[in-house]
Amino acid sequence: MIVHHAVVGVHSPLHKPMFHDVTAEAAAAVAESGIATGTINVYSQHTTCSVIIQEESHDRTFDGTEHLLQDMLDRLELLVPACRHEGQYLHPGPKHIAHATGNLGEEAWWSLNTDAHIRSGLIGRSETIPVVDGRMELGEFGKIYFVDFDAMRPRDRKVHLTVIGE
Amino acid sequence: MIVHHAVVGVHSPLHKPMFHDVTAEAAAAVAESGIATGTINVYSQHTTCSVIIQEESHDRTFDGTEHLLQDMLDRLELLVPACRHEGQYLHPGPKHIAHATGNLGEEAWWSLNTDAHIRSGLIGRSETIPVVDGRMELGEFGKIYFVDFDAMRPRDRKVHLTVIGE
Amino acid sequence: MIVHHAVVGVHSPLHKPMFHDVTAEAAAAVAESGIATGTINVYSQHTTCSVIIQEESHDRTFDGTEHLLQDMLDRLELLVPACRHEGQYLHPGPKHIAHATGNLGEEAWWSLNTDAHIRSGLIGRSETIPVVDGRMELGEFGKIYFVDFDAMRPRDRKVHLTVIGE
Repeated sequence: MIVHHAVVGVHSPLHKPMFHDVTAEAAAAVAESGIATGTINVYSQHTTCSVIIQEESHDRTFDGTEHLLQDMLDRLELLVPACRHEGQYLHPGPKHIAHATGNLGEEAWWSLNTDAHIRSGLIGRSETIPVVDGRMELGEFGKIYFVDFDAMRPRDRKVHLTVIGE
Repeated sequence: MIVHHAVVGVHSPLHKPMFHDVTAEAAAAVAESGIATGTINVYSQHTTCSVIIQEESHDRTFDGTEHLLQDMLDRLELLVPACRHEGQYLHPGPKHIAHATGNLGEEAWWSLNTDAHIRSGLIGRSETIPVVDGRMELGEFGKIYFVDFDAMRPRDRKVHLTVIGE
Repeated sequence: MIVHHAVVGVHSPLHKPMFHDVTAEAAAAVAESGIATGTINVYSQHTTCSVIIQEESHDRTFDGTEHLLQDMLDRLELLVPACRHEGQYLHPGPKHIAHATGNLGEEAWWSLNTDAHIRSGLIGRSETIPVVDGRMELGEFGKIYFVDFDAMRPRDRKVHLTVIGE
């Protein structure tokens, strides 16, 4: 049995939720591990992000977002609307703002990412994918996307890849 | 440490989202593995399907769907409505349709499964369940369901079972 | 390779969905396992509960619920409203009620937890978190919460922790 861990860095420019295709990086981690049978866990270290598997949808919006992913964002905008002003959600409250601006030196408006936190909680933080004959079982058209729902500011993000098997 | 992999085939007849109870198949994979302590990952290979754990709800609709599962579908119909016509969602766009009909030889209307893709992305593709004393920890009434949200056409589907432990 | 399993008991008093922070218990399981690199699966044994990762949000409501978690509940109340009366959802149907009251000796109204079952199915039952250098990769502010959506009655609940790695 082998356990292999790798980290992928991605960059999210402002001001829109971003999807990062990390399929190639995950496939590389499986190859590096030498594991034939097992699982790979693809995980977001951040509480405003998620990992999903989705089909490649060929068409894209002006800003390069695939149609199926934009459709998912459009539904999420109805289910958990973007936080546009203080008081729309309970969070961020006064203690959180004091902590963010005082202890962390952040701008107060950076904390208006409540929608991103809720979306991440609902969708989840990782996907675990079987590895069979040294390949991830993604089906013919499946891609792995790291989703950054936080549109407040440019961010550097980390995606963890953990392959376990033999 | 042992890793054991098995595949279960299920068939989804049209034209309704289908729930397939794969609890017995998952229990069989755990037994075959000989693993006493570890985890089993139950995974959908398809981007319009999910795996969930739910309680058995005894009552069923005319078509055999358990009440709790139909209630879940009814909420999903409000959250991510079934795609009933071209243009309801961005996907499928013209490039995707050209790819599906040209390269894959599909009927264009088979691609009107946008809702199934979004539901699968929101709910996720797998569940990972602890194995303790050689048994899955599902509680007294928990069942594992493979959910096929794609109601466009009859489909053969694959569910992957990966047991890791000792 | 090592596999380590532990169970944490939590208590949910009525009549509100409850969040239980189990981060310390999960960290203790990782430490006890002696595993440096691998994963920990944090799992709800119950079909009306989920496990999520969320940022600590400092401010709390009168009853002690963190603001970000209350915001999540507020959205869920719109997406999958609390079951307030028989007939609001299909479940519980007559056969389920007969089983619950007859075979299990439960009160019929305890089964009005349909919303909790659906929320648990949508959000999922577990999170799998990478373990790197003997520590969970939760980011700076991430906490692990066991969520009990069932507000019908006081309940004792079990959270399973399974650490796999080396």
